[in-house]
Amino acid sequence: MTNKHKDLNCSLYSDPEPLLLESGQTIEGHDIAYMAYGKLNSKKNNAILICHALSGDQFVASSHPITNKDGWWSRMVGPNKPIDTNKFFVICANVLGGCMGSTGPTSIDSSTGKEFAINFPIITIADMVNAQLKLINHLGIEKLLSVIGGSMGGMQALEWAASYPERIVSAIPIATSSRHTAQNIAFHELGRQAIMADIDWKSGNYRNENVNPSKGLSIARMTAHVTYLSETSLTKKFGRKLQDKSDLGFGFDADFQIESYLRHQGLTFVDRFDANSYLYITRAMDYFDLEKTHSKSLTEIYNNSKNKFLVVSFTGDWLYPTSENLIIVRALSAAGAEVSFVEIESDKGHDAFLLEEPDFDTCLDGFLKSIY
Amino acid sequence: MTNKHKDLNCSLYSDPEPLLLESGQTIEGHDIAYMAYGKLNSKKNNAILICHALSGDQFVASSHPITNKDGWWSRMVGPNKPIDTNKFFVICANVLGGCMGSTGPTSIDSSTGKEFAINFPIITIADMVNAQLKLINHLGIEKLLSVIGGSMGGMQALEWAASYPERIVSAIPIATSSRHTAQNIAFHELGRQAIMADIDWKSGNYRNENVNPSKGLSIARMTAHVTYLSETSLTKKFGRKLQDKSDLGFGFDADFQIESYLRHQGLTFVDRFDANSYLYITRAMDYFDLEKTHSKSLTEIYNNSKNKFLVVSFTGDWLYPTSENLIIVRALSAAGAEVSFVEIESDKGHDAFLLEEPDFDTCLDGFLKSIY
Repeated sequence: MTNKHKDLNCSLYSDPEPLLLESGQTIEGHDIAYMAYGKLNSKKNNAILICHALSGDQFVASSHPITNKDGWWSRMVGPNKPIDTNKFFVICANVLGGCMGSTGPTSIDSSTGKEFAINFPIITIADMVNAQLKLINHLGIEKLLSVIGGSMGGMQALEWAASYPERIVSAIPIATSSRHTAQNIAFHELGRQAIMADIDWKSGNYRNENVNPSKGLSIARMTAHVTYLSETSLTKKFGRKLQDKSDLGFGFDADFQIESYLRHQGLTFVDRFDANSYLYITRAMDYFDLEKTHSKSLTEIYNNSKNKFLVVSFTGDWLYPTSENLIIVRALSAAGAEVSFVEIESDKGHDAFLLEEPDFDTCLDGFLKSIY
Repeated sequence: MTNKHKDLNCSLYSDPEPLLLESGQTIEGHDIAYMAYGKLNSKKNNAILICHALSGDQFVASSHPITNKDGWWSRMVGPNKPIDTNKFFVICANVLGGCMGSTGPTSIDSSTGKEFAINFPIITIADMVNAQLKLINHLGIEKLLSVIGGSMGGMQALEWAASYPERIVSAIPIATSSRHTAQNIAFHELGRQAIMADIDWKSGNYRNENVNPSKGLSIARMTAHVTYLSETSLTKKFGRKLQDKSDLGFGFDADFQIESYLRHQGLTFVDRFDANSYLYITRAMDYFDLEKTHSKSLTEIYNNSKNKFLVVSFTGDWLYPTSENLIIVRALSAAGAEVSFVEIESDKGHDAFLLEEPDFDTCLDGFLKSIY
C-alpha cells in the first residue's frame, strides 16, 4: 500500500511481507518513506533511483520538512537539471534504518508495542537495497534506467548492480568504495563511541526517558564533518580566522571560525537526526564489503555484467579517495563490464559530490544522455 | 631549588619567581618536573633539550612510572643511540600545563589553596619555552647544543630558535608546523568537545567531586590517534580483520580489530593523563602561530639566524605533512639560516617520528655529529 506520510509530506510504502536481513534476522513488515519527481513514461524505462548518503534522506530535491532547507541534491535534480525531472521519473527513498519515515530504530516493534531503539536488528547495505527493490516492484518498474548515489549511496548503487543486474540499465557510484577501510571504520567508531558515551543515550532508550544524546550525536557529526572536507578547503574557508573577535580569547570558547562552524554543524544535526539511526547506518557502512557479502572477488561479482557504469571520484576526497574508486573501476574492466571513469579536479573534499562542480554535472548529464 | 619528585621518580625544579604568560596573566611560582641523562661536560656545551609532544612527558628514555612502559623515545635516546647519552647531557621536561609533575591544571593554586582545574590560565607554546628557559638557567647551561622535538615538540624547538637564538646552537623541528591549520584545530576541537560533553567533567571540577571524564578523554585520545596513523598503516596493520571472532557480530561490540585497538588506546590513556591538561595543551597547540606571536613574517623572525636547523618530515604524515614543514624550510632559507631538510619515506603516518625509521636515525645522528 502507498499513502502519504502525513507529518513528513512524502510518500510511504508499507510492505506487509517479512524482510529477511543479511544477519539472518527478519523484520515483520516495513515502511519506506520516499519522494518521487517527474513522470514514469508509458514504457516505464525512464526511472532513476537516487540513493542517499549517511546523513541524507528522501528529500533530494524538495525543501526539508524540518530544516526548510533546499533538498540535498537540488542543484543536480529538477527540471532542466542534469538529472532532469522533465525527462526522468526520479525516486529517492529514506534507507531502511533511517529516521525520516522508513522503518528504523525509532519505529514501533509490533511484537512488543514499543520503539525498537537499540533492539532494532543490525542492517546492511544489501538490506537497504532489498527494501528499495520492494518499493521498485510496488511502483511497477521492471528495470531502472539508473541507480545513482554518492558515498553510502554509491555503495547501494554497487550492491544493486551486484545483486540485481537484470533490474537496472546502469549504475553511477560516486566517491565511494567497495568496502570500508580501517580508517573509514575508525572515524565511524569515534562517532558511535561519542554517542554511546553520552549519559543521555541511556543504552539506546533515550526516547522512552524523554532525553536525547545531543552532545554525543553532535560530536559524531562534527567528527564526520571534518572528514568530509579537505585540508585545502578548510584552509581556504577558515584558515586561522577568528570568530567575531579581534584577538584570541585565551579560554575554551570558540575562538576560531572553524570551531564555531563545527559546533554549529553538530548542533543543527541533532534537530533532524536520530542518534540510534546514526549508530545503525554507520554500522551498515562499516560492514559493507561486497566481496564478503557475495563470497566472490569483485571481478567475479560483475563478471559479464550487461550494466553500464559511470564511476566518479574527486581529487580532494581523502575519505573515499580516487584509489578506492579505481579498485571498483579495475574490477569492472576485468569483468568485461562497460565502465567510464572520471576523476574530477576539486579541492572540496568528499563533500564535492554535493557541491558546485560544473565538470561533474557535465559528465553526469553526458552519461545519462548516452543511455536515454 | 631542585629536589626529587617523590612520587614520579624524576627531578623537580621549583621556580619561585612569577612567570608572565603570553595571555598577560601571571603564575606565581611554578614547578617543572624533568629527567636528565648523561653528564654535562666541563665546557657545558653538550646539553640537548628534548621537547615532548601533546601526550608525552619527561620520561623520554626511562620506564614510565604509571604504565611501566619504555620511555617514549628510548629507541632514539640512550647510550650509543642516535642521541647518545654517553656524549650528550640530555634534558626532557614535562611542559607547563602538563600533568606529570610540572605546574598545570592539577596543581594547587596558592591563592585559593584549591586545585587550579579550569581556572588555570591558558598557556601557549611560548610560555612552555619560557618555563624551560628558567630550568636551563637553573642548570647553569648558557647555550644548548640542540633543542629537538617532534609535533608539539617541534613547535617548541621553533619557538626557542625564534625567541632565544643566542641560547641554542641548533634546533631540530620534526613533523611539525609553524602554525596550526584549520584541520589541526578541528581535530583538537573534537577532542575538547568530547571531554567537555562528559557528564563527569563537571565544568572541570571532576577531581573535587571524585569522578573522572574518562569516556570523554578516551574519545579525545581515540580521535587524535586516528590522525597519527596513515591510511596505509591502518590498512596494513588492521584492514578489515575481525577481533577474536570468525564472523561479524551484527551488534555494536567491537567487531573489527581497529575498533578494539582504538578503544584500548583510549582506555589506557585515561590512566596516565589528566583531562584538563589535555584541554590546555591542545589549546596551546591551536594558538601556536609563530608569525602572530612575534608580529613578524616567518622569514623576518629567523632573519640572519646563526642557528643550524634540521627539519624532518615524513611522507605518510597527513597531520603535519611535508608541505607544512617546507613552509618552515623556505622561510629559514630566505632568512639566510643554515637549514637541512630531510623528507623520510614512511607509511607510518605522523607517529613515524616515534617509530622504527632507520633513515631518520641516520639523519639525526649525522646532524648531531656535524655540530659536536
